[in-house]
This record gives sequence, C-alpha cells and structure tokens, in this order.
Amino acid sequence: MESSARSRRRLDCISRHLSVPPHPNHFLQPVLLSSVQNKLKSGDSEPVIIGGMVLDIHAIPSIPANPGTTTPGKVNYVLGGVARNIADCMSKLGTKPFMISVLGLDMAGSLLLEHWKSAELSTEGILRQQDIKTPVVSNIFDASGESAAAVASAEAIEKFITPNWIQQFKHNIHSAPVLMIDSNLNLPALEASCRIAAVSKIPVWFEPVSVVKSGRIVSIAQYVSFISFYTCPVTFVSPNEDELTAMANALSGGNLFSSSPIESENSSYNSSIESLFQRLKPAIWVLLKHGIKIVVVTLGSNGVFLCSKGGLSVMRVGHEGIKRDASSRQLYNTVAVACPPNLIPDFAKSENSSLLFAVHFPALPASVVRLTGAGDCLVGGTLSSICAGLDLMQSVAVGIAAAKAAVESETNVPHVLNLAAIADDAELIYSAAKVVCHESML
Amino acid sequence: MESSARSRRRLDCISRHLSVPPHPNHFLQPVLLSSVQNKLKSGDSEPVIIGGMVLDIHAIPSIPANPGTTTPGKVNYVLGGVARNIADCMSKLGTKPFMISVLGLDMAGSLLLEHWKSAELSTEGILRQQDIKTPVVSNIFDASGESAAAVASAEAIEKFITPNWIQQFKHNIHSAPVLMIDSNLNLPALEASCRIAAVSKIPVWFEPVSVVKSGRIVSIAQYVSFISFYTCPVTFVSPNEDELTAMANALSGGNLFSSSPIESENSSYNSSIESLFQRLKPAIWVLLKHGIKIVVVTLGSNGVFLCSKGGLSVMRVGHEGIKRDASSRQLYNTVAVACPPNLIPDFAKSENSSLLFAVHFPALPASVVRLTGAGDCLVGGTLSSICAGLDLMQSVAVGIAAAKAAVESETNVPHVLNLAAIADDAELIYSAAKVVCHESML
Repeated sequence: MESSARSRRRLDCISRHLSVPPHPNHFLQPVLLSSVQNKLKSGDSEPVIIGGMVLDIHAIPSIPANPGTTTPGKVNYVLGGVARNIADCMSKLGTKPFMISVLGLDMAGSLLLEHWKSAELSTEGILRQQDIKTPVVSNIFDASGESAAAVASAEAIEKFITPNWIQQFKHNIHSAPVLMIDSNLNLPALEASCRIAAVSKIPVWFEPVSVVKSGRIVSIAQYVSFISFYTCPVTFVSPNEDELTAMANALSGGNLFSSSPIESENSSYNSSIESLFQRLKPAIWVLLKHGIKIVVVTLGSNGVFLCSKGGLSVMRVGHEGIKRDASSRQLYNTVAVACPPNLIPDFAKSENSSLLFAVHFPALPASVVRLTGAGDCLVGGTLSSICAGLDLMQSVAVGIAAAKAAVESETNVPHVLNLAAIADDAELIYSAAKVVCHESML
Repeated sequence: MESSARSRRRLDCISRHLSVPPHPNHFLQPVLLSSVQNKLKSGDSEPVIIGGMVLDIHAIPSIPANPGTTTPGKVNYVLGGVARNIADCMSKLGTKPFMISVLGLDMAGSLLLEHWKSAELSTEGILRQQDIKTPVVSNIFDASGESAAAVASAEAIEKFITPNWIQQFKHNIHSAPVLMIDSNLNLPALEASCRIAAVSKIPVWFEPVSVVKSGRIVSIAQYVSFISFYTCPVTFVSPNEDELTAMANALSGGNLFSSSPIESENSSYNSSIESLFQRLKPAIWVLLKHGIKIVVVTLGSNGVFLCSKGGLSVMRVGHEGIKRDASSRQLYNTVAVACPPNLIPDFAKSENSSLLFAVHFPALPASVVRLTGAGDCLVGGTLSSICAGLDLMQSVAVGIAAAKAAVESETNVPHVLNLAAIADDAELIYSAAKVVCHESML
C-alpha cells in the first residue's frame, strides 16, 4: 500500500474517532486483578510463559509456482511458536518473562536460543538436549501470500515439556504475577501448570492455539473437578471465533455451537458488531459458566470482545503502590496518560453471578504485511500491560495496538515495538471501546 | 523393501553377471588423462570444486496434506548443492577437494560450514560475509515421497561466486589434478574458471545441473572461440538425457534434438539399451564435435553411457608412479583388485577423429530411499577414482556404485561410503560394461 493512502486511512480513522463522545469510558471499570497487583508489589517477580518455541521456515516463490518443480524465491527463517511470540512481544514492551520450553541442540534450536540470549531473557527454563528435535514449521506460500502447504514437526513440545520439567520451576510460578500456558502442551503438562499456579492463586492465561487443541481446556476443567478444587484455575482465555465455539462445544460435551457467520451485508458497523456479539454470546456464556473469569474473543479486523461474568466485581481495582522496574514503568506511564483509567459503573460492580458483561474494542486499519503473530502479540501486549500495572481495559487496548504492529511486520513479533506509537494506537482503540452487553443471563 | 527381497534381487543380479564372458573388458581400454596423472605425480595437489553449497529443507507430512492447512510431519535439514555433494562424496572416498563457494553468516551457513570443518576439508575458498544469504531450497513432499512444492533461494551462488573470488585461488587450480564446475555459476564465473584451468591445461568437468542451466556450456564454447583458444576447455560433461539434448540444442543453435523416449516395451534389455543409444547418439556427437572429450550420459536405472570421439587416443594410458596419500591409495588398491585394468583394443587407439566410441555401464538394482544426490555421487565417485589414479572405465564403475549408495540413503551423500561395498558393486558394474558403439560418424 502506498504511504499516502496509508496516511489518509490513518487520518480517516483518527477523524472518525474524534467524533465519538470525549469520555466514552467513564462508565467502564478500570480492571485489575488483585493477585497480579499483589505479586507485582512483592518486587522482581517475572511472568511465566510455558509453551512452544518454534522456527517457522517461510518459502515465498518470486514467480507463480508449478507443482513438482523448484521455483526461485526467498526462504526466510521466522522466530515463532505461540508461547515464544507472546514472551518475545512482552520482552519488547519492557517485561522480562520467564520461559519454560524445549529446544534441540540443532541449527534451529541455536537460532531460537541466540535470540533469547540477545534479548537478555532467562534461558534457565529452556530444556536443551540431544534427543530433542527443535520444533519447526515449514511453509510454502503461493503468489498471493497465502500458505499453500505447511508441515509442522513439533512433537518435541508435547514430548519434552513434561510435568517434571515444569515442576522444577514451581518457585518461579509461585512468585509470578501471571502464568501463560499455550495449548500445544500435552494434557498432563497443562494440568501440572494449573496445579502449581492454583497453590499460590496465580492467575492463568490459557491460549487455545488452534481449533483442534482448544478442546484441551476440558482436561483442565476435569482435572479441577477431579481434585475437588471448585474454582476453575483458568482466569483468562483468548480464543478467536472458531476456537471459542470449539471450546464451548468441548466444555458442554456437545456440538451446539457453530461459528458460521450470519449474513449482515446491509447492516452498519455497530449493528454488525452487535449481531456478531449476539451470535457468539451463548458460547461465551458457556466458558464463563465454567468458571473462566475473562474471555477475550479476538475478531481479527473486527477487534476484540472483552467479556466477564458477574459484573466486574470478580476483579479488584487498584494500581497504586506497585513496584515496577524502569522499562515496565515506562509502559505504564506512557499508556496511563494516553488511556486515563475510568470509574467503574455501579451496574458492573454487581455481585449478580448471572450478569454477562462485555466490551467491544475496535481494531485499527493496518497496512497488512503478514497476519501471523497478530493474536500472539495481542496476548503479549495485554499481559505486559497487566504486569506493568495497567487495568484490563487499558491492557486490551495495548494488546490490539501490538497486534496491529505485528500485522504490519514481516516477522511474527516486530523487531521493535515503539512505545509512543503503541500508546497512540491504544488511545484510539481505548476511546472507541463500547459496552455491548450488561445483561442477566437468567 | 524387505531385506530378503533385496538379497534375492542382489543374488539375481550377481548370477546374471556370472553368465557373462569372464573377461568382457579385455578389449576395452584402461583410460587415464595424462594431465591428471602428471598433476598427481607432483604430490599433494587437490582437485578444485567450484559451485553451490545449499541447505535442502525437506518437509515430509506424516499424513496426507490438505492445501492451506498445516500437516504434522518431519522437517529434515539435508546438506546439498551439486558442487557440495560432489566434493562431500569425494571426501568420503578419501580425496580432499578444495571447495570454492559462498555461505552466509546465518544458521544454514553455519550448519554447512560445520560439516565441512568436521570432515577436515579446507574452508579457505568458502566466502562468508554478512550480506550473503546462504542458498536454501525448501521442499514439501507429498505422501508418496515426491516433491509437491519447492522454493529455491540460491541467488548468492550467482551473485557472490565472482571471477575475482575464483581468481584468488588460481594457484590451487593450476596445481589441481582436475577442476569441477557446476553450471549454477554465472557465465563470467564459468568463463573465468575455464580460463584459469586452460593456462595449466587442467582438465575441466562441467556438471550441467538442470535443463535450463545446462545451456551455459555455450558461453564457455563462445568464450573459447572469442579468445581464439581452439581447444574446448571442457574435458568432461555429465548430463542426463534431458540435459544432453538441451546442451546439444544450445550448442547447435537450434531445436533439433528431443529427449522424448521411444516406445520399446517388448524389446530385451540389450536392444533397449542399443535403441536408447541410437536415439541419443546425434546429441552426444554434437557435444563431442564441439571439443568436449568425454561425455558421461547418466541414464538413471539404465546406467551410464561413457562416450569419446576419435577413439580413446585423446587420452593417455598409464597409472604407474603416481603419488597418492594413504586414503586415496586405499581406494586405488581396493578398486584395482576388483576391476583389473584392461588392454586398449587397436580400433580404439585410432586417431580417426570421426570415430564415436561409447561404452554402456549398467546400474545395479537398489533399495531406493531417495533419488536426490545420485547424479552428484556419480560425478564425485568418478572424480575421486580418477584422482586416485584409476582409469576412466574403473572410475565410472565406482561412480555408479557411489550413486547406488546415494539412492539407498536418506541424505544426498551417504554418511559413510564403505570402500569394500563400493568395490564389490563397482566390480559387478565394470564386468558388465559393454561397447555399444565404435563407428565412424562420417
């Protein structure tokens, strides 16, 4: 896209937002998890990220490819893996996550580890040994930039990230402000992670990764009921529409939900967002009923639904007195100015457990280079902001801004995340957020 | 294939060969290039190999792949590149080639260089710098093991193997027993290589690589006529059938030759080999008429045609008094016992420059794992044997034995080439070699 067109689109976008009421969020709650805050108060605790580190090999033909022949083009090595991307994004926003993962003693493993060392992140939790083949996904794209074929060799994640390996870092988890697990982990590893986190009431973010793997949420729920631990150990989930319906179907043990879109060609922006929410609401409610406290539904160019049950009283407000290191403080200060926290409306403070509360955040127009990594940066940006002491509304706005930076980059995570640009984008997103639901589900 | 079936086929093959006359090669000439011999006599000269070092990425789905989705499977890193494979094969047969190539300061470059160092080969001729992207070919295979899609990022070979870079190693070329160039090189690099070799009358082996690139032979011939150097600087070429016809068309400036096969379903083995030769003879003759001294036509499972013009008098006989290092002597001694050199028949000594002389060598049945690398090992095996002081007949037999080992291996060049097994196979191939042509082309 030409830069003039891009500038025009940006101006259009800004002017559109200038027409919204000056303080649309006054009635929305600044949301913070007390446990996150407590951990952050205690000092130098690091968020823990458990999941895959993957090398993505992107082969891009420079001319249309004929099957069976070799086509000239470019082959790029892209650092990937959902958990790795999330941690990488957090690191670039000033948070230093503690990664628990596995890598082989091979070429791909060296490349991934080298990047980790150069970012000055801890490699203590990254198991490396001779019999591990570093996870790799080999992609060949077609001329239009779509993946034409892809093969994933990622069995090491399930085979070597074991409960035993995770257990070795239980002290890191116990002192973490938050634990992120990606559903590439096998079931015992997911269960072990949640068990360790539950002991110290560490909030857990579950990233469903794919439609197939998103169903693993059930095993955690089952594990929880098995040990009579009546609170769901998962605080956050971040599905896209398809993963949301798959998770709802898995949790309800049926096939009740479908993610096939409803035709709404003639509807306006607001009414299509409204109808989208109405379509997804039953599935969102299934997740909330199963004890998941926050459902972040990612909608691509349609933005994000941030949903909770029982109003926002499940989360405490308060972000004073948090110890933050310099880089984390920088994120906090920059975003807090751009997105001033707002007061909680009375209705959202309700203890009514049948209340479904949902806010819609728009996405910003972007000059798309590659869509990969956007969802991971959304999670990484949100988690970094939570760890920096921002509230959940502010944090999700930062997450969407980070996702926008990701789609405008050739890599999964941009080489640099410019805090000022992130804050500018977050401000636009935050100021355009709207409550789409605060109703009793009885 | 089951090992019992494989054993049976091997026995069948051996018993078939036992029925041929005991000394079928008595009338065939032991062929040696005097210049190769002279160089070898001078001591520790190394053959020089100029061309690509490439990392092949092989992605193999473990279940049938659906386009557009990611399929689980294996991703293997295979050391490749025609020139690299040839040099690697030579090294494993006891020859230490001097490689002139380029690699980036990246992951793939490190892997390729690491292997070179571990084989104790010189890396002096391998240019490494920041702006070079190591050549990579990314392949995705289908369930049947065929390449479904492949993208090659190999422009560094043409861009960075420059005449200037090659020129820095002119002393290595001047003292080499033989120079191998692959036609991945750009035209100025091919010409520069031949020019340097011509000064010291070093025989040049030109490997055509692909149908498209095989036409680069013309530039060398044009260069030669331009500087009024009336002898073609290329001694050997090693095309397959398609490359042969492409080269003949390019050299004759037309489109006279076709490699489309003639139907011969009911013909016996010998008559089909005979008809195959008759079909290819006009193209072979074009190459020989343009001054190429030896044409080695590779025929896959049909073996090899070894062809020369003007009888075998273009080459001198004699392999006494050659200085060989221990490992090279081991190849010589092992093969010389298995394939005793034979006397030159009078008709093949003819100085008649219109004589086309051709010998057919069969291939042996093989338990095919992957066909890649076979042609490169044929060249590598032949070159190693020539450098060890074996004659051309013996050398081609070793080349075919090395090619068989390559197709039975997952890698392009087998991890180990067992000399005894190579000699056993070479013996079978050598003893079954037959003159298919010794006729005047007037």
